[in-house]
Amino acid sequence: SPLFSCSSCSMPTTLLGSYLHLRPRCLAYALFLSFHLSQGTRDYNPKQMAIREKVFNTIISCFKRHGAENIDTPVFELKETLTGKYGEDSKLIYDLKDQGGELLSLRYDLTVPFARYLAMNKVTNIKRYHIAKVYRRDNPAMTRGRYREFYQCDFDIAGQYDPMIPDAECLKIVHEILSELELGDFRIKVNDRRILDGMFAVCGVPDDKFRTICSTVDKLDKMSWEDVRSEMVKEKGLSEEAADQIGQYVSLQGGMDLAERLLQDAKMSQSKQACAGLTDMKQLFSYLQLFQVTDKVVFDLSLARGLDYYTGVIYEAILTQTGPEGVSVGSVAGGGRYDGLVGMFDPKGRKVPCVGVSIGIERVFSIMEQKAEASAEKVRTTETQVMVASAQKNLLEERLRLTAELWNAGIKAEVMYKKNPKLLSQLQHCEDSGIPLVAIIGEQELKDGVVKLRTVHSREEIDVSRAELVEEIKRRTSDV
Amino acid sequence: SPLFSCSSCSMPTTLLGSYLHLRPRCLAYALFLSFHLSQGTRDYNPKQMAIREKVFNTIISCFKRHGAENIDTPVFELKETLTGKYGEDSKLIYDLKDQGGELLSLRYDLTVPFARYLAMNKVTNIKRYHIAKVYRRDNPAMTRGRYREFYQCDFDIAGQYDPMIPDAECLKIVHEILSELELGDFRIKVNDRRILDGMFAVCGVPDDKFRTICSTVDKLDKMSWEDVRSEMVKEKGLSEEAADQIGQYVSLQGGMDLAERLLQDAKMSQSKQACAGLTDMKQLFSYLQLFQVTDKVVFDLSLARGLDYYTGVIYEAILTQTGPEGVSVGSVAGGGRYDGLVGMFDPKGRKVPCVGVSIGIERVFSIMEQKAEASAEKVRTTETQVMVASAQKNLLEERLRLTAELWNAGIKAEVMYKKNPKLLSQLQHCEDSGIPLVAIIGEQELKDGVVKLRTVHSREEIDVSRAELVEEIKRRTSDV
Repeated sequence: SPLFSCSSCSMPTTLLGSYLHLRPRCLAYALFLSFHLSQGTRDYNPKQMAIREKVFNTIISCFKRHGAENIDTPVFELKETLTGKYGEDSKLIYDLKDQGGELLSLRYDLTVPFARYLAMNKVTNIKRYHIAKVYRRDNPAMTRGRYREFYQCDFDIAGQYDPMIPDAECLKIVHEILSELELGDFRIKVNDRRILDGMFAVCGVPDDKFRTICSTVDKLDKMSWEDVRSEMVKEKGLSEEAADQIGQYVSLQGGMDLAERLLQDAKMSQSKQACAGLTDMKQLFSYLQLFQVTDKVVFDLSLARGLDYYTGVIYEAILTQTGPEGVSVGSVAGGGRYDGLVGMFDPKGRKVPCVGVSIGIERVFSIMEQKAEASAEKVRTTETQVMVASAQKNLLEERLRLTAELWNAGIKAEVMYKKNPKLLSQLQHCEDSGIPLVAIIGEQELKDGVVKLRTVHSREEIDVSRAELVEEIKRRTSDV
Repeated sequence: SPLFSCSSCSMPTTLLGSYLHLRPRCLAYALFLSFHLSQGTRDYNPKQMAIREKVFNTIISCFKRHGAENIDTPVFELKETLTGKYGEDSKLIYDLKDQGGELLSLRYDLTVPFARYLAMNKVTNIKRYHIAKVYRRDNPAMTRGRYREFYQCDFDIAGQYDPMIPDAECLKIVHEILSELELGDFRIKVNDRRILDGMFAVCGVPDDKFRTICSTVDKLDKMSWEDVRSEMVKEKGLSEEAADQIGQYVSLQGGMDLAERLLQDAKMSQSKQACAGLTDMKQLFSYLQLFQVTDKVVFDLSLARGLDYYTGVIYEAILTQTGPEGVSVGSVAGGGRYDGLVGMFDPKGRKVPCVGVSIGIERVFSIMEQKAEASAEKVRTTETQVMVASAQKNLLEERLRLTAELWNAGIKAEVMYKKNPKLLSQLQHCEDSGIPLVAIIGEQELKDGVVKLRTVHSREEIDVSRAELVEEIKRRTSDV
């Protein structure tokens, strides 16, 4: 039977059956499986975790700086909770098997669970962040950072407030995080669902086609205008005239000036919805000026965003560097206003206005990993301050006793799990994992009540009395 | 139709159909669903998250103190990865629906994914921790901290080392964590699968009944000896004589002395396996003495642990306080040695000896929450240092400008999203959420280039120049 190479581990596999629908079965089935992860998922090794921890710390610090609280929700929800919230993307939801009980689905994003949480707990205002994995049965493209299991870092503001103030804070947060992560230059595109809907109306799109035409416009970041126009006309049955009018608007980009210009636009100004959106857009830009972030923000009429639940301002951040000919890495953050979603979960339909942003950090991880790979600086995967070692035999018990003393004093310490390890292998471990100090004991040191403290990089050694050891280690590693 | 009260939200519900097998349907189905979480799962609100963060910090600090690296694995694995690893508990695994692709299951613990990770990446030695949610289709008992989705905090040492050194470190870690969390007194029971198997052999249990009899012995913490004996004899077909001999051994508890005594025991000493286990147990206790943790550790022959994969030492920590008449809250940590598991995933069956411990922290959360509830001290859910406020109208823009200045300087600051909020409501928010400082601006302050800095608890106010504000806030909140 023909040989294939497995896409995830490059192990040769053969086509023996159709039990695994998406992937050929291996010659040795058990062996194949034991070496595989589910498609579109990944492990994080210690080095990747160290990078991930750093990225999370940056993001969480920003969320806390803005006074956000933290919540968590289960990884699965009742299937009905997710039904009818995602439009055409609903087909990507993972369902759990019916094993006799409730019908459950893995969460698709953190926004719908948040809305369910607000309604269920009758919360009418909160500023919260939520960092967790979400699940989509999408075609994985792991080299480009697209997975079936991936993290979202969400920040949302729920509550009845004066227009555009929380919305502006969300954009400020995106600006802060992308600046601090040092990922290169970026742009934040902004638009408003009301402007899009108004535009569709004045261009002659029938009411019942708004959502589907919106989905097509959303593809403009991946498809040419010609292809988008063709999908509108041929697949979705829009008139050529309407499509061309849309084409004129979606090519527009600008700032507060563009919002002002469109408010004067003969056609656009006929739509009340569009005018409301444009007035708010002007207000938004005035707050963004106060926040000093207008350098990166562009009002872009081609931005649509696929999800059904947005009702007002929408935005998306892209990295503009990397890739040849200015091809962008893609979206790294997105969000918008969804004033109707909480009401869908409330028995009396009580609305809680919400606006939020989601940082999609898998791409950020990819970039940070590449940077770490290229850098000469080694990524440490532990924080160990000192290795307790010995050059002589039969000192295991003394090493363990000293190590426990250090642990009990709050020192991060390691000891080799061998009765008589070689000094060289103990020192080599320090070199490999970046441990800065070694506490060496021998018969003489034990007799004298001292420890030989060695600095790994300089190889310098001094005797430190046992009583002063903890303080000396703290002093020497306080800047680590 | 009859009315029931929903167990999770106490909303009245009616029995309308059997679509939901486990729970009566509500009168208004959509309404019912919108107010419900999947059975056995929970949300964490901001207060619970603040407690959770504190508990995690204690645990992670301990793991890092012991030089552990961090890894992460996907929430679902190929179904085959989990098959045949959990014995009788396999029925509790959650499967995903077959939506055309691979057959997937939610992880049941972090140990099997760890073993799969080691084999797949050919890692032969590592000390790692992994904190993540696992899933079990068990009967939830949420008031006692038993959920279908819950966190495990795992620490494991993989590698070929001298006997009992890593095993002793795992017990030292349990001791440190349970002491630092201040949950009251605790005991760590220790046993060894080889001692159990040797005991079964010398008591006349047939080889093929070892695992199933072991499962029954494991119930001794929940069932009386009479019931356990009856299950052995009536359900599992063991002879009464064998059962009674087991009964004599499993009542034994002690320390190194008990291991020594059993090594001399006429029957026990006939089993090579038991002798190997008992010799290691003596060695373990000698290391535990060096680590100064023998005060809490008991060698207990009734400890069996249900999972199939253990091969050597096993342990379980229980809280001894709370509950009347010495009834224990139950297990809060458990683990042991599993030297064969990694080999099950390796094409050549290469073994990687492993030992580890899993802290089950849902019960810990429950206890910490109750403690927080009972305490007079308020749990803060944000870290906000200062609220930017105004007593006068039309100063929104000035408030936003100052807030952005503070954010850019790394100060955690909040501002109300209203054009003209009342000073009282701004101060009230500080009282409610524990914000220690208020930066108040008015026309006069703006003219003078100052900010009125108010300390919330003392109500004291001083003017601080705009240039010195950041330093002053840092100085005043450095101990927060």
